[in-house]
Amino acid sequence: MENRSEKWNFEENKKVNASSVSVRGVYNRLMERVKNNGDKKPLISLCRVDPTDHPLFRTSLEASDAVATAVHSYNFNCYPPTVGLPQAKRAIANHLSADLPYQLSPENVFLTIGGTQAINIILTVLARPGANILLPRPGYPHYESRASCCHLEVRHFDLLPERGWEVDLDSLEALADDNTVAMVLINPSNPCGNVFTYQHLKRFAEIARKLGIAVISDEVYAHVTYGSNPFVPMGVFSPIVPVITIGSLSKRWLVPGWRTGWIATCDPHGIFHKTGLVKNIINYLEITTDLPTFLQAAIPEIIGKTKDDFFLKNLNILRETANIFYDLCKEIPCLTCPNKPEGAMSVLVKINFSEIKDIVDDIDFCVKLAEEESVLLLPGVTVGLKNWVRISFAVDSSDFVESFSRIKAFCLRYSKMP
Amino acid sequence: MENRSEKWNFEENKKVNASSVSVRGVYNRLMERVKNNGDKKPLISLCRVDPTDHPLFRTSLEASDAVATAVHSYNFNCYPPTVGLPQAKRAIANHLSADLPYQLSPENVFLTIGGTQAINIILTVLARPGANILLPRPGYPHYESRASCCHLEVRHFDLLPERGWEVDLDSLEALADDNTVAMVLINPSNPCGNVFTYQHLKRFAEIARKLGIAVISDEVYAHVTYGSNPFVPMGVFSPIVPVITIGSLSKRWLVPGWRTGWIATCDPHGIFHKTGLVKNIINYLEITTDLPTFLQAAIPEIIGKTKDDFFLKNLNILRETANIFYDLCKEIPCLTCPNKPEGAMSVLVKINFSEIKDIVDDIDFCVKLAEEESVLLLPGVTVGLKNWVRISFAVDSSDFVESFSRIKAFCLRYSKMP
Repeated sequence: MENRSEKWNFEENKKVNASSVSVRGVYNRLMERVKNNGDKKPLISLCRVDPTDHPLFRTSLEASDAVATAVHSYNFNCYPPTVGLPQAKRAIANHLSADLPYQLSPENVFLTIGGTQAINIILTVLARPGANILLPRPGYPHYESRASCCHLEVRHFDLLPERGWEVDLDSLEALADDNTVAMVLINPSNPCGNVFTYQHLKRFAEIARKLGIAVISDEVYAHVTYGSNPFVPMGVFSPIVPVITIGSLSKRWLVPGWRTGWIATCDPHGIFHKTGLVKNIINYLEITTDLPTFLQAAIPEIIGKTKDDFFLKNLNILRETANIFYDLCKEIPCLTCPNKPEGAMSVLVKINFSEIKDIVDDIDFCVKLAEEESVLLLPGVTVGLKNWVRISFAVDSSDFVESFSRIKAFCLRYSKMP
Repeated sequence: MENRSEKWNFEENKKVNASSVSVRGVYNRLMERVKNNGDKKPLISLCRVDPTDHPLFRTSLEASDAVATAVHSYNFNCYPPTVGLPQAKRAIANHLSADLPYQLSPENVFLTIGGTQAINIILTVLARPGANILLPRPGYPHYESRASCCHLEVRHFDLLPERGWEVDLDSLEALADDNTVAMVLINPSNPCGNVFTYQHLKRFAEIARKLGIAVISDEVYAHVTYGSNPFVPMGVFSPIVPVITIGSLSKRWLVPGWRTGWIATCDPHGIFHKTGLVKNIINYLEITTDLPTFLQAAIPEIIGKTKDDFFLKNLNILRETANIFYDLCKEIPCLTCPNKPEGAMSVLVKINFSEIKDIVDDIDFCVKLAEEESVLLLPGVTVGLKNWVRISFAVDSSDFVESFSRIKAFCLRYSKMP
């Protein structure tokens, strides 16, 4: 068998290897560095955004009970319908409509296995030969990975740190052409931690309308805001331009491992229906795997019964950690944070290479920090911004303070100043 | 916006529209026929294989408890590791190894969202420009749909009804060339209901070895046998040829809606490692969505604690329904079943068009039967065999008897005989 191994060369599968830019892939590689290095200090990961790594962030009892009840009912062990359980779709439609000037119907909602599968489905159905998509930079690398998988060309527009991470709207129009199928915005912003204003979102929507393309609004951090800007769903502007909203229970309900997400078409003029997009989504759902049926069945109770106190408590923790972060960051000369985070659970920080020596770039910074201090940060290049780092602050504040004390010691060790 | 709708034409997304051959797609379309037709008779679906449609088939209390316990522990709300929770991988490796002449390690196991995602992953990582794959006909149409999605050419080998649905081994070799990457077998067989013998599987493996290609063994019905042939996993022959096994809790534990499956590489010579296949699987898992973490966490208890009585009871029901089916089928002149089912949960039956009038093909047969009798069968063309029908017998025996009385009445109505 082995002497025929020339038939077995799988290395050339390039689209699969696009995964080198995934958060998960980078996290796994950094973890290896920590593991290989003995157990000097307890690991603190600020790399992935997974609040459940910390007992402080625990989902609501109502949510857990809803899932357990659905399992024990024995009514939801069957295959789910292609487009999802009607009661779950209705609950999500109503939940989203509370922030919209019109009512979504259950038919506007498709259940997905987390935001990840939502992205996979949307990019797959939008892809056609020669098509391109406009993505934010910095952004969430899963869009790039999936676009590469389905041969969708990526064009980036910039988010500007000096303007609070707003979109460089002036450059947006020039990027698009007749083969542009959509533009993506993540709000509240992962990785930047900003929350876009009503006015800015409106201008973004108006440009999409002018270009004749759809907006994909990634709102997996919907309502996770604790600064001055309130969360405004892009669907508010769907009378101007059709919007595909991506949502999830993961972050707001603190259950990323439940992989419970959705796609909602906010499209009062029915453009997605007329043009075949909805049909393509349904066709594709017929050949994809599903969110487990009992999780679908639990959605109405999870959304309906989780109390406001639960959300308020989590936002208060995040606000406090964001404040701690901003103060601690100012004490470290080699790091600059242009904006205090006001939403989502992460922030981007610039490494000032003029201040440090013996570190070549952001990856080198993160690898050495992992090896020497057992602190994991995400290299900015992963999210499209070389020589920055993304820091998750969905962590216990004592862990966070400890991690910054290690980062400070690390930066001092590599400082050019004596 | 609407006057620019020429940019919005998504109809050309051909790979997505490949779903017209999915079981789910056909099921959905037949359901529409029943719905549109008022509520003459209560619906009986023998179309999809979903035992949980019937209260008779209920998963074990141990399995449900394991899931509820994992949810209530709050320890498994986090993102899972890329390749799955180690304890789940170990439990599956041990479970599979009980039937193998050697021990699988947890590293041989990858958790998937049902057999569906397992197929998606394997075909995606095997695909490369110009590659082809050998699939059984009749077979499970998801292989064709996914192969089409990743531009993998499909070549079919026949399963022969006159030989108990064994593979037409003589034609197998001639189908393969230097671009053939794997050959697939489903055992116990969906849709045929047969169980392949040790000797036949060995000959299949030997041909794969001669051709220098891997075997993908779809064993989602593993151990669901109730005739004379015992279940033999293809992994038994992995010293001859490397085997990728696809498995799932769906059928044996009666939980298709839990979407809990796996890929196991049975590869004692480490060929998949050396040739990069394992690396490609891991890379691809980094950009796919996951089985919810708490379901992964429940796997050791589900597998370890479900009692033999549970499986025996279900096999006894299936054996009885298979017997009822075979006797009832003989009474209907326009249907011929070449072999009594001995495994899995469905069977293929030939429609004798020489006996009936005013029905043009298997689709027409199934549509008219749905409309007139509210009985759903799967047109054989869906599984690659025109003018046959697939019948699921994972149903309550009283429903099954009732459905056959309606099928009999239907066939008499269309009989050429007066």
